Amino acid sequence: MRDYGEGDRAAIERVVAEDDAEVVGSYTIKPNHPGRGAHVANAGYMVAESRRGRGIGYTLGEHSIETARALGYRALQFNQVVATNETAVRLWERPGFVVIGRAPQAFRHPRAGLVDTLMMFRAL
Amino acid sequence: MRDYGEGDRAAIERVVAEDDAEVVGSYTIKPNHPGRGAHVANAGYMVAESRRGRGIGYTLGEHSIETARALGYRALQFNQVVATNETAVRLWERPGFVVIGRAPQAFRHPRAGLVDTLMMFRAL
Repeated sequence: MRDYGEGDRAAIERVVAEDDAEVVGSYTIKPNHPGRGAHVANAGYMVAESRRGRGIGYTLGEHSIETARALGYRALQFNQVVATNETAVRLWERPGFVVIGRAPQAFRHPRAGLVDTLMMFRAL
Repeated sequence: MRDYGEGDRAAIERVVAEDDAEVVGSYTIKPNHPGRGAHVANAGYMVAESRRGRGIGYTLGEHSIETARALGYRALQFNQVVATNETAVRLWERPGFVVIGRAPQAFRHPRAGLVDTLMMFRAL
């Protein structure tokens, strides 16, 4: 395992998913905190609007777990999962993420108003 | 209250504490997340090494709560309080912060090894 010491520049990786040379999704992995927290990864995901609902998000999620592990990270953490988005919460619980925190009214939902956000975590 | 809508550039503020024209500490307030999470602030604090243990951190903390409120933020959140640092946890509990999450082994402590971190939150 790579050891991310203080001041060490931890691994940042961008992965792009293509279908017939068309970009259908991507994700980026980076340290969730610099320095002494840099062994925990954070990731952001994008799926093309035209390709939603086909499992691309789940595939990217599983792929990113493997990528984060290969990069030497010890865990993967999401800081802002919208609590009312049950699809997202279930999507992440399936490959083993657990809720480790809840921020009250931390997201201004376009229809529901102020809703909670969850922090989700998976050891690698 | 200022409303931080999507794409709105939320307030970032830096405050410097001086004693006889010597900088003894500072803090910075910024949105904890962009866009629809930008009504929750995050802050970082620094106290001069030579001035530690004199309550400057607590004074900055209380001042930052007022500043965040004045800037229109709805809450102040810390993402990475080291769980074994009881002084820090107590420091923040005094003005009303509560623990809203715990990330397992998310901090590589120079002596204690991998220790948990806490997310702490205070509504404004």
